[in-house]
Amino acid sequence: MAKGLPKRSEDYSRWYTELVLRAELADYAPVKGCMVIRPYGYAIWERIQSTLDRMFKQTGHVNAYFPLFIPESFMTKEAEHVEGFAPQCAVVTHGGGAKLEEPLYVRPTSETIIWSMYGKWIQSYRDLPLLINQWANIVRWEMRTRLFLRTTEFLWQEGHTAHATETEALEETVKMLEVYRTFAEEYMAVPVIKGVKSESEKFAGAVRTYCIEAMMQDGKALQAGTSHYLGQNFAKAFNVQYQTKEGKLEYVYATSWGVSTRLVGALVMAHSDDNGLVLPPRLAPIHVVIVPIFKGEEERALVLGKARALADSFGPETIVRLDDRDNVSAGWKFNEWELKGVPVRIEIGPRDLAKGQAVMVRRDLGEKRAVPLESLKEVVLRELQDMQGALLHKALDFRQASTKRLDDYESFKKQMEEPIPGFVDAGWCGSAECEAKLQEETKATIRCLPLAGQPEKCSCIRCGNPSERRVIMAKSY
Amino acid sequence: MAKGLPKRSEDYSRWYTELVLRAELADYAPVKGCMVIRPYGYAIWERIQSTLDRMFKQTGHVNAYFPLFIPESFMTKEAEHVEGFAPQCAVVTHGGGAKLEEPLYVRPTSETIIWSMYGKWIQSYRDLPLLINQWANIVRWEMRTRLFLRTTEFLWQEGHTAHATETEALEETVKMLEVYRTFAEEYMAVPVIKGVKSESEKFAGAVRTYCIEAMMQDGKALQAGTSHYLGQNFAKAFNVQYQTKEGKLEYVYATSWGVSTRLVGALVMAHSDDNGLVLPPRLAPIHVVIVPIFKGEEERALVLGKARALADSFGPETIVRLDDRDNVSAGWKFNEWELKGVPVRIEIGPRDLAKGQAVMVRRDLGEKRAVPLESLKEVVLRELQDMQGALLHKALDFRQASTKRLDDYESFKKQMEEPIPGFVDAGWCGSAECEAKLQEETKATIRCLPLAGQPEKCSCIRCGNPSERRVIMAKSY
Repeated sequence: MAKGLPKRSEDYSRWYTELVLRAELADYAPVKGCMVIRPYGYAIWERIQSTLDRMFKQTGHVNAYFPLFIPESFMTKEAEHVEGFAPQCAVVTHGGGAKLEEPLYVRPTSETIIWSMYGKWIQSYRDLPLLINQWANIVRWEMRTRLFLRTTEFLWQEGHTAHATETEALEETVKMLEVYRTFAEEYMAVPVIKGVKSESEKFAGAVRTYCIEAMMQDGKALQAGTSHYLGQNFAKAFNVQYQTKEGKLEYVYATSWGVSTRLVGALVMAHSDDNGLVLPPRLAPIHVVIVPIFKGEEERALVLGKARALADSFGPETIVRLDDRDNVSAGWKFNEWELKGVPVRIEIGPRDLAKGQAVMVRRDLGEKRAVPLESLKEVVLRELQDMQGALLHKALDFRQASTKRLDDYESFKKQMEEPIPGFVDAGWCGSAECEAKLQEETKATIRCLPLAGQPEKCSCIRCGNPSERRVIMAKSY
Repeated sequence: MAKGLPKRSEDYSRWYTELVLRAELADYAPVKGCMVIRPYGYAIWERIQSTLDRMFKQTGHVNAYFPLFIPESFMTKEAEHVEGFAPQCAVVTHGGGAKLEEPLYVRPTSETIIWSMYGKWIQSYRDLPLLINQWANIVRWEMRTRLFLRTTEFLWQEGHTAHATETEALEETVKMLEVYRTFAEEYMAVPVIKGVKSESEKFAGAVRTYCIEAMMQDGKALQAGTSHYLGQNFAKAFNVQYQTKEGKLEYVYATSWGVSTRLVGALVMAHSDDNGLVLPPRLAPIHVVIVPIFKGEEERALVLGKARALADSFGPETIVRLDDRDNVSAGWKFNEWELKGVPVRIEIGPRDLAKGQAVMVRRDLGEKRAVPLESLKEVVLRELQDMQGALLHKALDFRQASTKRLDDYESFKKQMEEPIPGFVDAGWCGSAECEAKLQEETKATIRCLPLAGQPEKCSCIRCGNPSERRVIMAKSY
């Protein structure tokens, strides 16, 4: 099954694509740049979705649904926004057999259509805050696509909130960033750095963009989520004012924040190995697979009976699959479930049963271990918990080992040519020119100004001018 | 709050639209024919979605996601399909700032894009059956739209299954129709008639279309769900063959089935009254609202304390909202929650507390009833259950009273001009001509050939020719 999967060390990019295809997470669609999310990949997305949805609701948000189409005239109301997004849009020019009077943009993000509605709904301070999230499909015309990481159409959630004050809106922005961090670390087992984007990397129309940046196994950064403080930009563009308690009219303050199906790609790139997927138990569609081993009818009845009883002994929290297919061998099944990243595999055969045991293999460790049947369930549950922690720990260790504090440009340039370039913690003078040149010369970008970073007198790694703080630089997806 | 809501008897259509807007289920979008599903309406859809999703999974289906865009050349592969759908499509002609070589259709349904993928995935009998469902947005250019019932963009689920044999595919088609019936009756409390569509009303590309037909309070029919047996039409159009156990190549048999956000409209039209929504408890976003009544700080502390304790006494299955807003009166709250259709309202004031009781009002009955505090929770839970049954019962009674068995065309024509035209059970000769004339002359259509109906010698209500069976005719949405 796993035969032919390239090694990460030889061709990380091809390893990733082959893995996504062979594990049946996704497939190429016949439309350029689009993908089909296959059932196994979609099951991971469903787990991401239901977890985040719960976290959003616990923080007071509700869901709604806004139209797919945005009139051209709306897109142009916020100057930076249209400049950033219009060139990436798919445009509907015909509907119902006739040419449209005004072209419709397929949403590349929904600020404009949502703020046109907020203008109708928000009158008074009593209507605030408005805390709405939407699960939707998004289209951005991409030239170079990669399954899950960058596709013309993708699925995401976008939160759009309206507040009476700047302070409240800023609090919301960082609160949702923290929700994303929690989710990335506690569910995806992917450690992330919270930070602020530079001016040139911020969202088109935002005052400030916060992000979480993760490191993939090839030492490249992946932006895993963003949370934007939009100030009054969209409220002004769509004339959304509210009456304060004192009877004055004020523009509303806004935030927006989103994560997408890109997270499935991040999950794959962060943990998987040369044998296939390695999925953190909290997001795995199947936690435990039981593979029965037998020859002939008598053994079959004995082993399958025991295997079924074992599968049934788990509660509804643990998703157990008994693989009782007759048309493939046990070895074939081992490879398939390894490829698909099921956290725990249990093998049961007559010899095991005679000894009152079963063989257990944890996907990330790969070693066979005999476990007495009477403690098997307990051991499996503990291993699932341990594996969740172990994956985060391993990813943290890797990030630590792949993050360098550098102060001279030559070392930096050399570092970016390493097979695993990793993160570089370096000074930056803050000028857009240095940022652009740095990218041109090294292919690295300023990923973020870490929130945890303290002001520190240092020198810009590129121009040597005095700098106030250090930033994270890396090559990225 | 409810002031100004038109009466159903005076203007049913305006009553519906005003109710949807005022109860904040949906709002008109700035794009022609599109709507915004507001949080309260979306919360109902989420309950519909999660219930159906569970039912689909219990019947062996998995979810996936296919692209929004369909190349023009795909649409044209199945002759009837393109004829039926192409005129309703929104067409993307530009992307990323350039004109596209081939226009892309925004999906009006996904058979073509899905069967193009099934061609890649299905090789052998081992790959069958393939039981996939998708939750997605759909666009059909509509000339006359109505919130939820008919909008240019809507949300739905579409199941697309592939089978080795005709028998299996037919079984799947009727199985999913039965899932829809169960959902409509047990969750929506809307009784439906299962039937088959006439040739002229069937899905473009289907061999046979099954449907469930519901009756609204104005005596019009509403098609609430469809399940199509597609035969080998799409398998042949996309050349999807599988190798049988015996090594022969055969075309695959297909089904597709769907329900949409239209169900929210059906829910409103089936149960609500002149004071607002009446929501069946199993789909209501809020089951119980508690309105505390007090004057001054002392009463406030006493009443709110008791109200909170009561709210907390319910388990997670019961969604209780304590309405402790200070800026609106209790009377205003009563009207608002009545408008929003919350099944049970509890009023607690100091006088009630002194008597050890609270006042309870069931939304569909509207009568105040004093209930001792110690049995309140138990009574509320029972009333929620009773209300679910009572709504279905009432709707069934209404349908029965509004269904007539008629045999002459004059009576039929007169019946269709009644304020509540209802269903008519009548003979039909089976000719498309009579069907078309009947619609022209009475505005009624043949809703379905009921599955429960038995062959019966009778005469066509329009032409008088001998007929083999009776059908359901009605005006419809």
